[in-house]
Amino acid sequence: MSAEEQQQNGEQVEAQQPADGEQVVTPWDVTGGADGKIDYNKLVEQFGCQTIGADLVERIERLTGCPAHPFLKRGVFFAHRDLKELLDAYERGEPFYLYTGRGPSSEALHLGHLVPFMFTKWLQDAFKVPLVIQLTDDEKFLWRGLSVEESRRLARENAKDIIACGFDVRRTFIFSDFEYVGGAFYRNIARIQRCVTMNQVRGIFGFTMEDNIGKIAFPAVQAAPAFPDSFPHMFGERKDVRCLIPCAIDQDPYFRMTRDAAPRLGHIKTALIESRFFPALQGESGKMSASDENSAIFVSDTPKQIKNKVNKHAFSGGGATAEEQREKGANLEVDVPWKWLNFFLQDDAKLEQIGREYASGRMLTGEIKAELIAVLTEMVERHKRARELVSDDVVDAFMTVRPMTDLYG
Amino acid sequence: MSAEEQQQNGEQVEAQQPADGEQVVTPWDVTGGADGKIDYNKLVEQFGCQTIGADLVERIERLTGCPAHPFLKRGVFFAHRDLKELLDAYERGEPFYLYTGRGPSSEALHLGHLVPFMFTKWLQDAFKVPLVIQLTDDEKFLWRGLSVEESRRLARENAKDIIACGFDVRRTFIFSDFEYVGGAFYRNIARIQRCVTMNQVRGIFGFTMEDNIGKIAFPAVQAAPAFPDSFPHMFGERKDVRCLIPCAIDQDPYFRMTRDAAPRLGHIKTALIESRFFPALQGESGKMSASDENSAIFVSDTPKQIKNKVNKHAFSGGGATAEEQREKGANLEVDVPWKWLNFFLQDDAKLEQIGREYASGRMLTGEIKAELIAVLTEMVERHKRARELVSDDVVDAFMTVRPMTDLYG
Repeated sequence: MSAEEQQQNGEQVEAQQPADGEQVVTPWDVTGGADGKIDYNKLVEQFGCQTIGADLVERIERLTGCPAHPFLKRGVFFAHRDLKELLDAYERGEPFYLYTGRGPSSEALHLGHLVPFMFTKWLQDAFKVPLVIQLTDDEKFLWRGLSVEESRRLARENAKDIIACGFDVRRTFIFSDFEYVGGAFYRNIARIQRCVTMNQVRGIFGFTMEDNIGKIAFPAVQAAPAFPDSFPHMFGERKDVRCLIPCAIDQDPYFRMTRDAAPRLGHIKTALIESRFFPALQGESGKMSASDENSAIFVSDTPKQIKNKVNKHAFSGGGATAEEQREKGANLEVDVPWKWLNFFLQDDAKLEQIGREYASGRMLTGEIKAELIAVLTEMVERHKRARELVSDDVVDAFMTVRPMTDLYG
Repeated sequence: MSAEEQQQNGEQVEAQQPADGEQVVTPWDVTGGADGKIDYNKLVEQFGCQTIGADLVERIERLTGCPAHPFLKRGVFFAHRDLKELLDAYERGEPFYLYTGRGPSSEALHLGHLVPFMFTKWLQDAFKVPLVIQLTDDEKFLWRGLSVEESRRLARENAKDIIACGFDVRRTFIFSDFEYVGGAFYRNIARIQRCVTMNQVRGIFGFTMEDNIGKIAFPAVQAAPAFPDSFPHMFGERKDVRCLIPCAIDQDPYFRMTRDAAPRLGHIKTALIESRFFPALQGESGKMSASDENSAIFVSDTPKQIKNKVNKHAFSGGGATAEEQREKGANLEVDVPWKWLNFFLQDDAKLEQIGREYASGRMLTGEIKAELIAVLTEMVERHKRARELVSDDVVDAFMTVRPMTDLYG
């Protein structure tokens, strides 16, 4: 960047390069504070969203008649925007749909990638609502060195893992931007783009003068699915269908921008339900990285790989030796096996018991790791079996623009 | 614009706001120099294109077996990029196609709008090549206060006037961006966008931080039709079909950018054949404006309107009185009726005679205006009759994405 560029982007560069120890959360960068941890309370305050309290969880259970998903009970999905308004509308019998997505950057998904999809599936089943899933192959093309063809291929591969999470084909439309952008969807992209200046995307996303113009245009592509008339085969020209987006909280900037544009375009502001980041095996200092193979468990990993990765790389809050663990117990605050079990061990009573035993030192590090290995192995093997059933024809069934019926109920 | 913005866009603001008397030619602004005139030699030098000499005109006649269109003989289309290379390839039997377009901003076209289409029709007939015509309804939406619906409606209305110029439906694909962007075309847009930074579009087009991100993205939308694989229904995935763009010279910046991107994307650089501006009735100080009704003759004008506009508003280089005209003759350099006859009077001998008589003072201002009125009335009435035949079905025939055969010969 030239000195002139530096000057031009003065405030923004500062905003993107905070003082040492300040946390940074953008769609492309998640870095914890001085202690390496994300301060989620601070993030909620900074972004201007709300935390999800027990009252809201109970209300969802009451409205859907379903016990809350562990991610909801345990605060994995912990923040929201306008969720109360959405539930009010749902209670009045007004329709909504779910929108989530993924940037297809790697061959196989890792467990962190599955988190929003597992939760979205639960939301779809509980509320019995339609769902759109955007695969931003254009985003990955614009940000990385991939070819268009490779981005599209990865999008289809990722679609298989997503479908294996169990979505209902009658109510689920999966699309890649390189396939679906056009028509009503492109017209909404242009409408959003007209509402947003270069100055604004610089402020929100930290774009600079050196960024390519595709990146600068892209936020509108991610925003457009939040408006129901981007999907005429599902909603016709209706603008009164609300949208709820389950996503990790790093995506919040996109949807702040979307919510700003919504009323100017005659749309209802999209609601959000936002998750914490799934920690890397090495410890909670942000998200897992698909580029560091040992930081994550992939849905394609063998039982042996899972066992080795957990035993070798999972950061432990337990004592350095069995004796020390027996004496002092484990620090659950930093223990990755404990954190991961909180995501994936369904049984509340068993989870509580493990926590108690491990914290007190009655359970050893090797033992909690073994519990985690069992849970992950079962989960990954189940996923693999489901994925094997997802043929190309099944992918086509989800990804074809088709008149969709039975959207509700 | 804030002071900070001013500073940020320092060089660019200067480039867009030259000293008094300096000409400015961009796709959105055409302003003549100190004398109000465009210095086309200077423009050619500044843009880095070439002028078209008599040798090139003769070569086109020889290759096509057709006498050159008056616009070519008389220097209306006066500049080019890589036209010689294109003709070399044509001579070797290699294919090319034509690409032109229009931003649909007004209900009816004026005669200045027709100039590129009349010439493009001649090129299509002479070379027997396919043609794509882009209607940038998205551009007009992004730059003006129009709704998406109004932009699309104007695109279809304009398509009728364009079709009335006589294009061959077997070889002509007309599309509006709000209809056609998507698939292979969108993928090329993204490919081009990845090659171009915000800094570059600021330099080429003068965009500022206050411009909306749709404008910033748009140059890639106008560039994409210059690559044949944006039209799989015409060219499949071929990249070896050359492109020739007939346009007014103010569009040159778009295609300089396109030509820079072409080799990086494995494409042949598009060739250009560029015209002067059609002068306003009030005199040659740039392009006609659809927003000033009296600056132009519209294809919807009645014979009476044509007569009144020419008699009242056409700037005359003749003497102030009949006596003065007889004594001193007319200054053809600034005379609009003379300039317009140079565009539209086909008969070379008659044109020469009028010029001689009028310059010498033997012909009066009223007489040359009467000649022009006769030419324009006949031309506009012929256009109206042709346009009446262009039903919605005919528009659909040109605008439908269809497998196209008989593209050549």
